[in-house]
Amino acid sequence: MSSVVVPRPIPVALLGLGGVGKAILSQLLSPPLSAQFQLVLIANSRQSLSLPLPAAPITPANFQSILEKHGAPLNVTSVISVLSTHPDAPGIFIDSTGSDVIPAMYPQILSMGVHIVTPNKKGFSASEALYKAIAEKSFPNTPSLAYGESTVGAGLPIIQTLKDLVATGDEIEKIEGVFSGTLSYIFNEFSKPEGGNVKFSEVVKVAKEKGYTEPDPRDDLSGTDVARKLSILSRLVPTAPALPQGYASIPTQSLVPDVLSDASTKEEYLERLEEGDEFFANLREEAKKEGQVVRYVGVIDVKSGKVEAKLGKYPADHAFATALKGSDNIISFTTKRYSPRPLIIQGAGAGADVTAMGVTSDMVKIYERLAVPRI
Amino acid sequence: MSSVVVPRPIPVALLGLGGVGKAILSQLLSPPLSAQFQLVLIANSRQSLSLPLPAAPITPANFQSILEKHGAPLNVTSVISVLSTHPDAPGIFIDSTGSDVIPAMYPQILSMGVHIVTPNKKGFSASEALYKAIAEKSFPNTPSLAYGESTVGAGLPIIQTLKDLVATGDEIEKIEGVFSGTLSYIFNEFSKPEGGNVKFSEVVKVAKEKGYTEPDPRDDLSGTDVARKLSILSRLVPTAPALPQGYASIPTQSLVPDVLSDASTKEEYLERLEEGDEFFANLREEAKKEGQVVRYVGVIDVKSGKVEAKLGKYPADHAFATALKGSDNIISFTTKRYSPRPLIIQGAGAGADVTAMGVTSDMVKIYERLAVPRI
Repeated sequence: MSSVVVPRPIPVALLGLGGVGKAILSQLLSPPLSAQFQLVLIANSRQSLSLPLPAAPITPANFQSILEKHGAPLNVTSVISVLSTHPDAPGIFIDSTGSDVIPAMYPQILSMGVHIVTPNKKGFSASEALYKAIAEKSFPNTPSLAYGESTVGAGLPIIQTLKDLVATGDEIEKIEGVFSGTLSYIFNEFSKPEGGNVKFSEVVKVAKEKGYTEPDPRDDLSGTDVARKLSILSRLVPTAPALPQGYASIPTQSLVPDVLSDASTKEEYLERLEEGDEFFANLREEAKKEGQVVRYVGVIDVKSGKVEAKLGKYPADHAFATALKGSDNIISFTTKRYSPRPLIIQGAGAGADVTAMGVTSDMVKIYERLAVPRI
Repeated sequence: MSSVVVPRPIPVALLGLGGVGKAILSQLLSPPLSAQFQLVLIANSRQSLSLPLPAAPITPANFQSILEKHGAPLNVTSVISVLSTHPDAPGIFIDSTGSDVIPAMYPQILSMGVHIVTPNKKGFSASEALYKAIAEKSFPNTPSLAYGESTVGAGLPIIQTLKDLVATGDEIEKIEGVFSGTLSYIFNEFSKPEGGNVKFSEVVKVAKEKGYTEPDPRDDLSGTDVARKLSILSRLVPTAPALPQGYASIPTQSLVPDVLSDASTKEEYLERLEEGDEFFANLREEAKKEGQVVRYVGVIDVKSGKVEAKLGKYPADHAFATALKGSDNIISFTTKRYSPRPLIIQGAGAGADVTAMGVTSDMVKIYERLAVPRI
């Protein structure tokens, strides 16, 4: 038989050079990935840099200054064109931005034959109209692949596992988990199986100091991030309820208590954080009386047709109480095959390196798919 | 752009029709898989049946009697030839046997361009010579794929996750887990965080009655099954020690105590099982004094270069003590990225349906790889 067709390194454009973008860049410039992919462009929100440079190659240490010195204004349309017309096309477009403008362009990008890999939740968790437009322009409806493993659980194999369960004919009954690293940390510290009286405001402040929260902690405490992840998973379950407005169709409990809803700036909110302490202390006390702990969870209950992001109470010997540590995510799948005991995946669900790994593992799958043509 | 090339249903031969084989058959005959694969042959250890039949199609209910009535003697060489010369070739050869003769033929099968998917551990866990011969004849050295997700953890995404970690440049430091559903059940019952005085022999007898053990429980208690799984995982870690004789190169603690080593039949062994109770009771007592429980684990410690299957003691609040239930597997990966807290995967690690799912999810990946040709 003929020997395998090893694809030439796949051309890649990386948009977004924040913490995750930098980690993606670092992984792509190192072995073993450096042999499989060739960066043809990197860009932050303002500037782009075409690669390779005529002189020395870029490195994780020097790209920032080179981009600032030699960058040109970013033009997304021309990036797509570079990837679709490259001699080694089709290329991969990595959207590592937090933008919602770029996700709106996914259908166009895919229809040019370009693959998309992204940790950006916004494209897959917005309106059903955008989701359907992306689906129509991607595999199996076209050869273009649109992957987002890192949009849920960062590098944890959450999306691939759910796809495998569905594709092999299992029936999803319930998906339940702690999907936010920030809220995992906050409630693991605030409500421990062994008890404790720490104030909610104090835990939030420590979380912020440790860099576990967004600059404005309300962005985590609103529950929106969890709702976006639920939306992404729900859409992979054929029997889950439709979500016309994506995450916005999901009942989502906010952890910004009513007394603080009028705080107009994050500074005011952080200053007045203690005003919410009584609310959370009461919740914890109520749970404790029942031998339970409080966790902020996302639930997709296919049987009852409910998708929700909310505070839940769990027995002190439940995996969400005992096994969960630090800022880990834990996600459990209860299915026809995996019941009564679920399939559980646990580990760091945030952080630049593991999120980047979710992106690069998707890219490896694209590389491998290109490498085995049907005879 | 052109629309996607949807591959015709991939021809499949299924060898081995025990519990797992039947579950594979059932999944392949049901949607969604029935649209992607066409069974061209099924066989047990004696007889084979070419498909489709001229009259009615086979079903999970009728295949057994049809095979017995119309089967022809199995000829593996001609099965390979059917798969490699089929108009929709290359096909997939599913080895769901417990044979070690068929794994010895994997290099030959792969070199005919045929893909292999198998829950049979014997090919990947035997001598390094066979492992290398398989590797030489499979991707990325040829276009033929050899997949065995279900050889470790059944349907749990253990092998894919390890491959993803390695392929994206992470460094594996330690893999540790409870890899045997049988030994998980036995020790979860025998050594509980909250204590208890049940006898080891009683637990083994209940496990046998529940169908959790092999017909001869010594096949589980020897630790060989765990050593085979460690061998399969180790070989995916470039920095792990070489295992010239596969599982046989791994120090493996047997749970058949010395006093019982002279039992010549399984009947004698089962009758005399209580003679080992003191040994295990002492172990449990010793662990309990240290606030620990006993678990039979597999460990790949890359830093120290050790691969071992053995009894280990774990603190009562460790995931192997608290989170592990029933006959579940739990596997933790500690890596450069996932440390100090590991990536953990837990769930049923045995059973026909979930093992079959590990096989069919590999098949879906082959189907998808064939569906996206490089332009």
